[in-house]
Amino acid sequence: MSFWEVGEMASSLLALLLLLEGAMLSSSPPPSGLLEKLFQHIDLHQDEFVQTLKEWVAIESDSIQPVPRLRREIFRIMALAADRLQHLGARVKSVDLDSQQLPDGQSLPVPPILLAELGDEPEKPTVCFYGHLDVQPAQQEDGWLTDPYTLTEELPVNIKFILEGMEEAGSVALEELVRKEKDSFFSNVDYIVISDNLWISRRTPALIFGTRGNSYFMVEVKCRDQDFHSGTFGGILNEPMADLVALLGSLVDSSGHILIPGIYDQMTPLTEEEKKMYETIDLDLEEYQNSSQVEKFLFDTKEELLTHLWRYPSLSIHGIQGAFDDPGTKTVIPGRVIGKFSIRLVPHMNLSLVEKQVKQHLEAVFSRRNSSNKMAVSMVIGLHPWIANISDTQYLAAKRAIRTVFGVEPDMIQDGSTIPIARTFQDITQKSVMMLPLGAVDDGEHAQNEKINRWNYIEGSKLFAAFFLELSKLH
Amino acid sequence: MSFWEVGEMASSLLALLLLLEGAMLSSSPPPSGLLEKLFQHIDLHQDEFVQTLKEWVAIESDSIQPVPRLRREIFRIMALAADRLQHLGARVKSVDLDSQQLPDGQSLPVPPILLAELGDEPEKPTVCFYGHLDVQPAQQEDGWLTDPYTLTEELPVNIKFILEGMEEAGSVALEELVRKEKDSFFSNVDYIVISDNLWISRRTPALIFGTRGNSYFMVEVKCRDQDFHSGTFGGILNEPMADLVALLGSLVDSSGHILIPGIYDQMTPLTEEEKKMYETIDLDLEEYQNSSQVEKFLFDTKEELLTHLWRYPSLSIHGIQGAFDDPGTKTVIPGRVIGKFSIRLVPHMNLSLVEKQVKQHLEAVFSRRNSSNKMAVSMVIGLHPWIANISDTQYLAAKRAIRTVFGVEPDMIQDGSTIPIARTFQDITQKSVMMLPLGAVDDGEHAQNEKINRWNYIEGSKLFAAFFLELSKLH
Repeated sequence: MSFWEVGEMASSLLALLLLLEGAMLSSSPPPSGLLEKLFQHIDLHQDEFVQTLKEWVAIESDSIQPVPRLRREIFRIMALAADRLQHLGARVKSVDLDSQQLPDGQSLPVPPILLAELGDEPEKPTVCFYGHLDVQPAQQEDGWLTDPYTLTEELPVNIKFILEGMEEAGSVALEELVRKEKDSFFSNVDYIVISDNLWISRRTPALIFGTRGNSYFMVEVKCRDQDFHSGTFGGILNEPMADLVALLGSLVDSSGHILIPGIYDQMTPLTEEEKKMYETIDLDLEEYQNSSQVEKFLFDTKEELLTHLWRYPSLSIHGIQGAFDDPGTKTVIPGRVIGKFSIRLVPHMNLSLVEKQVKQHLEAVFSRRNSSNKMAVSMVIGLHPWIANISDTQYLAAKRAIRTVFGVEPDMIQDGSTIPIARTFQDITQKSVMMLPLGAVDDGEHAQNEKINRWNYIEGSKLFAAFFLELSKLH
Repeated sequence: MSFWEVGEMASSLLALLLLLEGAMLSSSPPPSGLLEKLFQHIDLHQDEFVQTLKEWVAIESDSIQPVPRLRREIFRIMALAADRLQHLGARVKSVDLDSQQLPDGQSLPVPPILLAELGDEPEKPTVCFYGHLDVQPAQQEDGWLTDPYTLTEELPVNIKFILEGMEEAGSVALEELVRKEKDSFFSNVDYIVISDNLWISRRTPALIFGTRGNSYFMVEVKCRDQDFHSGTFGGILNEPMADLVALLGSLVDSSGHILIPGIYDQMTPLTEEEKKMYETIDLDLEEYQNSSQVEKFLFDTKEELLTHLWRYPSLSIHGIQGAFDDPGTKTVIPGRVIGKFSIRLVPHMNLSLVEKQVKQHLEAVFSRRNSSNKMAVSMVIGLHPWIANISDTQYLAAKRAIRTVFGVEPDMIQDGSTIPIARTFQDITQKSVMMLPLGAVDDGEHAQNEKINRWNYIEGSKLFAAFFLELSKLH
């Protein structure tokens, strides 16, 4: 259903699984010829790769909406993925989790997290691949083209998988599991790879070494639970919508600057090294603007644009719950409304401090209004930003692999979005974490008409092969 | 389905029709005993009155949501009402109307308007009763308790009906029909009665001589049609929600004062006579506050409260279309959002001038933001305020009737809501228009748990009887 969500998985898990299938098909080739042979296999079978992707795309799932039917779809895909990994010869452990208690009292089951291991040879480096399966159930048999093979000696690394189904809903329960498995599943892991985002250009691959965090706030203004008729009550009430609009209007100015006192104090200044890295990045501003269908961005230079996506926090107002949101006209005075906004945090910003600053600011604004309504602010999601050390071995291996497959140097970039698990993995396991994206800048993730190019998908599969080989050499 | 909507009709059309049924049941009583006999009939049959009301309440309909299924329900109720009037012996004309073209290109049929006449004796005054049937279809046979009777000589007035099914959606096509029927259907009408609102107290009946108008605005802010992901675009965009929240926040301050320049210039000052009228009104402030479940109104005195409901314009923000409005968390940057608000106009305010002032104000605010988004403002509903001459004969007759049935003087009040057809009738037909409400202040119209008291319903039916008798004497 959601092309991007499948794209994330396709560009990562699918490409990887199909590559591995190829690797196991090839019976005892000389190590030096492995990569060529794999590339050939991928090229020859690319229609099948695309067909499998097509089947995955056709399937609906969603971890964000707390609906039992959709939740069941995630369980189904977790079971299918486990099955697929088992066919590949991996040892798979499905970790069952406690139910999730929603704010409205509803209880929903949380899909299991899969831990899988493919290869366990101490002399080889162990790469742990993290992926999430939200919005990616499978409706039909996955159509393996051959009988399953068991792992052959040709694979130059051991591979582990950790797959969850609740990333889009904030990775419920994953952190706890990582903590629990720190000294078991993760003990022999050397590198953790995540492939869940995009390049900054259409043609130049990128490595991602940082992501913004996210703090999501709800601010409720309540007069009473029932709505009012604006004819009967308009003019004598502190209307909750007027209060809420003033609160939301106090957060950010028209130049994108956040108006919450102290919020920028937590940032570190831009280094000379960083500035240089921004200069070499392959970003065609005009093309970026056109592909985004945005008439004009807030900034005119590549450096300004990128720093405001990666190095500065941003605040977005997402919407209002409880007001009139249908088409047409309704003269209601909503009695209780909830405004929703979030702040993307950059490295070195502290979540608790941000929460405190936001609450203090909103309380001050509300207090000045002298309204008889009740206001309540809560931070409902708090996800840390993440930044990695780009001198780590796997970054060097990935750079080489990119040169091999694409013939260019990768853009060393950050991501304005939040992949909270990167920071979680890094903090808990103390292992090197890298993001290896396969999708192009114009894939339009999380929006209408999202897509992934066939080229990115097929070459991405090759990139995994080259990366594993380089890693085994450098390790 | 909607109790209040049925309440409107029940308190008016149903009470009136059931009264007329009683009037026709009584064969040749002496004119002097008519009222007593009718009152007796109503008291004896009140369970049946309530049963009929119950059946009407059980039925769903809605003219606001542009949905074919709901629209068909209105057609159904118009046909049933026509049938009921015909059984009563009225001549009924069902006026078919052109389809309605919605802003989104959809075309929906408009239910017919019913014109009905009961009695045509030139020596008697002719009262035209306006009602609307939105949200009032009938699911089962209406269960007449007796065979239909033809009109007897006892009815002291001629009665006409004009019934529509699109009031809640802005009385589409009604004005044109009134204009067309001015010299035919309306030519021999003396008085027009509307019963579509509430008393200001729980026990003291009221007559309503004025209503506020309404101008409903939509302000659209657009960056592009698709939404954005706040991770990928947060920080480099003029976000439409930030613009919209600033626009909506510029409309009214926290004391309810409208901030649109010039908007108060159109009001006339409060007269001494008006001030006196406000003093005698039966309004228990504390009870009003409690029954409204509002902790504190913007004003502390009865006079301030009432003037801000009736004599001052008010502005309410209803909601936002196109943003994230579901429960849960979604980190979307809406690409195109539409804010909705309306201004309740008081007598002597000019619609076109208000429209101009609102547009100028919003354009000025938007221009100061220097945003690259596109803004478009439109007034999608424009309904005039209405004020009547309370020395008109029917007001005197109604006062007398209230004394007879309830034993008290009525509150002479206005209504903060908009019943646009009052002004339309008055302007086009040049006849006296009066509003004769039957519902109590705590009925909670247009909100959850709306209701009507059995007492109001039954005594209201008697009030119609007494009113017709007094009118025939005074005319």
